[in-house]
Amino acid sequence: MAEGQVGKICFSRIFEDEDLAVAIERRVKEWDIKAGVLFLIGTLKNVVLGYYREGVYDHIRLDFPLEIASCIGNVAVDEKGEVVIHAHLVVSNEKAECFGGHLLEGSQVGATAELIVIEGEGVSLQRSFDEKTKLKLLKLS
Amino acid sequence: MAEGQVGKICFSRIFEDEDLAVAIERRVKEWDIKAGVLFLIGTLKNVVLGYYREGVYDHIRLDFPLEIASCIGNVAVDEKGEVVIHAHLVVSNEKAECFGGHLLEGSQVGATAELIVIEGEGVSLQRSFDEKTKLKLLKLS
Amino acid sequence: MAEGQVGKICFSRIFEDEDLAVAIERRVKEWDIKAGVLFLIGTLKNVVLGYYREGVYDHIRLDFPLEIASCIGNVAVDEKGEVVIHAHLVVSNEKAECFGGHLLEGSQVGATAELIVIEGEGVSLQRSFDEKTKLKLLKLS
Repeated sequence: MAEGQVGKICFSRIFEDEDLAVAIERRVKEWDIKAGVLFLIGTLKNVVLGYYREGVYDHIRLDFPLEIASCIGNVAVDEKGEVVIHAHLVVSNEKAECFGGHLLEGSQVGATAELIVIEGEGVSLQRSFDEKTKLKLLKLS
Repeated sequence: MAEGQVGKICFSRIFEDEDLAVAIERRVKEWDIKAGVLFLIGTLKNVVLGYYREGVYDHIRLDFPLEIASCIGNVAVDEKGEVVIHAHLVVSNEKAECFGGHLLEGSQVGATAELIVIEGEGVSLQRSFDEKTKLKLLKLS
Repeated sequence: MAEGQVGKICFSRIFEDEDLAVAIERRVKEWDIKAGVLFLIGTLKNVVLGYYREGVYDHIRLDFPLEIASCIGNVAVDEKGEVVIHAHLVVSNEKAECFGGHLLEGSQVGATAELIVIEGEGVSLQRSFDEKTKLKLLKLS
């Protein structure tokens, strides 16, 4: 377990045709945030969702316009101090049917997406590669 | 991009038969919050979900009791300084099947809904009408 | 309605085979948090979702591996001052299909789950049993 104080709260718009995962990471780096929690709503032109299965993510690609009904995630750093975004999302189609999973690159923003990040200050959130799961897991109890 | 400090954190219960969208906006105004992030869980008697399609929201109305599995959103102001709530939700039926989209008026609260808003202080979050998308978009990079 | 200041922000990893509901409650108690908001993403080996129906939760049990696409909730206390966690979640299967509802005990964590709690300070969030709904409702307007 780790605890800190809440630092800044940051807001950004992500624009049409940006790659959602890349855009989130870029903004978090610009804000120089190393630990925190993120929230996002908006729309997508398509999505690539990950489903974790024994050391690897299945890629599920949906090629139609979607609402981002929910996107929550966290900000940490890897062993080299590089920012790692871990976010999951729920998207919905024109019938309001939902699809969910791990946010992967290749998901293209529609009209807009609105990102909010709340920073954790005075806390070190580090990920390191875990041989068993093949994931970069948080070094926390 | 815009950044500020975290202000107050506010909690409210929303009651049976209140209109969810109206109730959220009313409470945010009473708290005098002009920028922030919101979270809500609870139940609904019915829901009206929006799906954005080229300048207009399709309305998807579901007339049965639902869990609000997730509701996240943000608080900003329009050109006149009036509060604008932008929230998306995921609801689920008795089989746990999910439906998602943009929160529209006409969604009636069931037994209860629990709202939490975290304020962003020292930050101006303004929306202005965009001719291309017909949406009030955040004036942010 | 109730408002306070934001206190600490806490992070924890929940491990394989832990009961998700039990694990969240245990960590919140260790942090000595009595009011707040929580967020979690991760994976599950199975889930037990609640669907509220006139005073009782239907239990919907899904016995296959799932992504936790979203989990949001709040922290309050009951009449005796004991911590009560109220959380809802959206989970997704290998086809990215979503299932949602109220988090119940019996949901076993998969590879990992990542919990973040933001504390509300200077605010009393109390639940009390309501005869009509049979729920412990927040004593708030």
